[in-house]
Amino acid sequence: MLTESIHQIGAAAKAAARKLAVLSSAQKDKALRIIADLIEEGAERIKSENARDLQQGKEKGLSKALIDRLTLNDQRIKGMADGLRDIANLKDPVGEVLNINRQANGLEIGKVRTPLGVVGIIYESRPNVTVDAAGLCLKSGNAVILRGGSEAINSNLCLADVLRSGLTKAGLPAETVQVISTTDREAVQIMLKMDNYIDIIIPRGGHGLIRAVVENSTIPVIKHDKGVCHTYIHKDAELEMAVEIAFNAKVHRPGVCNAMETLLVHQDIAAKFLPKVGERYQKAGVELRGCERTRAILSSAVAATEDDWYEEYLDLILAVRIVDSFKEAVDHIDQYGSHHSDAIVTTDYQTSRDFLAEVDSAAVYVNASTRFTDGAVFGLGAEIGISTQKLHARGPMGLEELTSVKFIILGNGQIRE
Amino acid sequence: MLTESIHQIGAAAKAAARKLAVLSSAQKDKALRIIADLIEEGAERIKSENARDLQQGKEKGLSKALIDRLTLNDQRIKGMADGLRDIANLKDPVGEVLNINRQANGLEIGKVRTPLGVVGIIYESRPNVTVDAAGLCLKSGNAVILRGGSEAINSNLCLADVLRSGLTKAGLPAETVQVISTTDREAVQIMLKMDNYIDIIIPRGGHGLIRAVVENSTIPVIKHDKGVCHTYIHKDAELEMAVEIAFNAKVHRPGVCNAMETLLVHQDIAAKFLPKVGERYQKAGVELRGCERTRAILSSAVAATEDDWYEEYLDLILAVRIVDSFKEAVDHIDQYGSHHSDAIVTTDYQTSRDFLAEVDSAAVYVNASTRFTDGAVFGLGAEIGISTQKLHARGPMGLEELTSVKFIILGNGQIRE
Repeated sequence: MLTESIHQIGAAAKAAARKLAVLSSAQKDKALRIIADLIEEGAERIKSENARDLQQGKEKGLSKALIDRLTLNDQRIKGMADGLRDIANLKDPVGEVLNINRQANGLEIGKVRTPLGVVGIIYESRPNVTVDAAGLCLKSGNAVILRGGSEAINSNLCLADVLRSGLTKAGLPAETVQVISTTDREAVQIMLKMDNYIDIIIPRGGHGLIRAVVENSTIPVIKHDKGVCHTYIHKDAELEMAVEIAFNAKVHRPGVCNAMETLLVHQDIAAKFLPKVGERYQKAGVELRGCERTRAILSSAVAATEDDWYEEYLDLILAVRIVDSFKEAVDHIDQYGSHHSDAIVTTDYQTSRDFLAEVDSAAVYVNASTRFTDGAVFGLGAEIGISTQKLHARGPMGLEELTSVKFIILGNGQIRE
Repeated sequence: MLTESIHQIGAAAKAAARKLAVLSSAQKDKALRIIADLIEEGAERIKSENARDLQQGKEKGLSKALIDRLTLNDQRIKGMADGLRDIANLKDPVGEVLNINRQANGLEIGKVRTPLGVVGIIYESRPNVTVDAAGLCLKSGNAVILRGGSEAINSNLCLADVLRSGLTKAGLPAETVQVISTTDREAVQIMLKMDNYIDIIIPRGGHGLIRAVVENSTIPVIKHDKGVCHTYIHKDAELEMAVEIAFNAKVHRPGVCNAMETLLVHQDIAAKFLPKVGERYQKAGVELRGCERTRAILSSAVAATEDDWYEEYLDLILAVRIVDSFKEAVDHIDQYGSHHSDAIVTTDYQTSRDFLAEVDSAAVYVNASTRFTDGAVFGLGAEIGISTQKLHARGPMGLEELTSVKFIILGNGQIRE
């Protein structure tokens, strides 16, 4: 029964995707703008459905941070609508011809950008993801199946209703956007096996969610895993710059994935650098967890355990380690990091080049804060997430990363000899 | 015990991959040329190990076709060596900077092409895949773990030995290429769960192998699934051209994945077209399996069943169906095809454009034989296979498809405000 209804959703998405693939940009943009208006007009209804989720969340004892992420107020509702209008203004990647070359036999062979088809998104509490993801998928010509967290189910179903009204009003298939309406966990298991209907699964959430998806999906997955980001202060770093970057990377917004979690410091600069940055951290209320040598310099630091090097705190907590060499820093990043965003602060040309070449992360920085890893900053216009894997998309994913390509071959009777 | 040894292979590959990622093209090309020479020098030993596989294969009653695929003779050994030299002459994709843009705050943000890391290849009987795949992975800076079929185990281990000698001679880590030496099926299961060591799995083989990999892998997979390719003859097709293309697509080399398996014919042209092409097929010994309307025109055709439309014959057998309309042809391709290579023959401009837009396959043709879907023909230099999925790589996969990218961010002290 459940299997059947989830399969129906898959089949309907696939049918919608075929129609979406051949729409003009103007048709898709019109739908995005209609939906944006309907979201603003429906603010009261959205807030009242959201209030039911908030009430249940409070009864269940959700943390203050989770309640905050779950909350939709007028400003956030306007934000969702404006987000859709921004997406409407972005360039449509579909249909772009990447190159066409003529072969000796006269065949013209090229590549054209196409939608992926059907995108499945599995996410946790923030209901605005429902609208952002649907908007990005629509613009890139994909149908989307959304599976949000049970805490946000009323908000998500209400938003889906608005989205589908807008699609219908614009003359597009309502099945372009479908939200799985049951909170039964079994529904996700069924969804993850529908590789005949779904072309890609994007899980967004904690490490547990990501692992469960990776381990059970027969559909290709693009992971948006944790960000264990490092800043490494090389021995020759400019001291003031190093302090500013290390401070910004940790303190500017500690709850996000591009915030620094571990600070690595070359032994030759530690005695000068750590007291300076330590003072800044102390004033900002950052808890430090250091290696033994760090604690010899910064007495306020508690002892770091092996686990600390793997930790994504998402909080005002920082692991600090003194390393003997550049190589030790790079090895640490390789072993403990999540290959998200990692920075070096150095004045040496060759060291900067070695860091860029040897650190195998989605974003590798020289002399800047890791906080810049972001679709908007990187010029993608909008992002559906930040991929921490190497296949298909790496780092911030925008519209282009929601597309595939196909080869087109234009002939006038060529056969293979 | 087995788990431990497979994990050791994974860890060794990952360590080798870190070294490979920073090699110059010259170092990699030198190794490829050394290996090519060693393969030619080792021809006698390779043939004698191959003879053991052939002997066992014959005892096990392998089909003639399989024995042929398994066979290494002087010509094929030279072919493998020359293939490596060709790869050495290709452009190295690693290190290519795709673009660097300067932001308002002075940050320079760009993308650089990197190796994927560790590639796992699971394949069936052809031992030359061992050398081809190793060469392509080496050139693109990836370590590779190869798991070939049990029928070819002696050939594969011998080839791996030659490959590793060459790597050592060139000063590269021998662990760049590792062949799993046990034929225990459990080894594959262990390999498919090592997402901490392996970045991508490429299965090459029959549908059963592909499904088993997709269903069990926690590592991203690039499928090289079957080719159920179509040629659709539209009502206005030029008759002679249609006959030549339909004949070539089926008969030129029926055993490969880009050969046509189903011929779709518009009802308005069927009475003129089918007798002409049918005569050609008959002379070539092609068995036809037709729909009822086809059989009314071609009495030699046997009745096609529903299963025939899904079939990849890889043989001189062809399914033939008369359709009422363009739409019915496109729907048939969507429903029964494997989204590999599909062609239309038409003289109408808009119909050609609609076919290119609506058919969702890796290669979509107008007025040419599907037999051209091939890495060399498409200008990739060499191919590791033909992807039938939409993520990361679609259609023929060359060196570039064995790479990822990373963002590099060059600053002079930028922090996020």
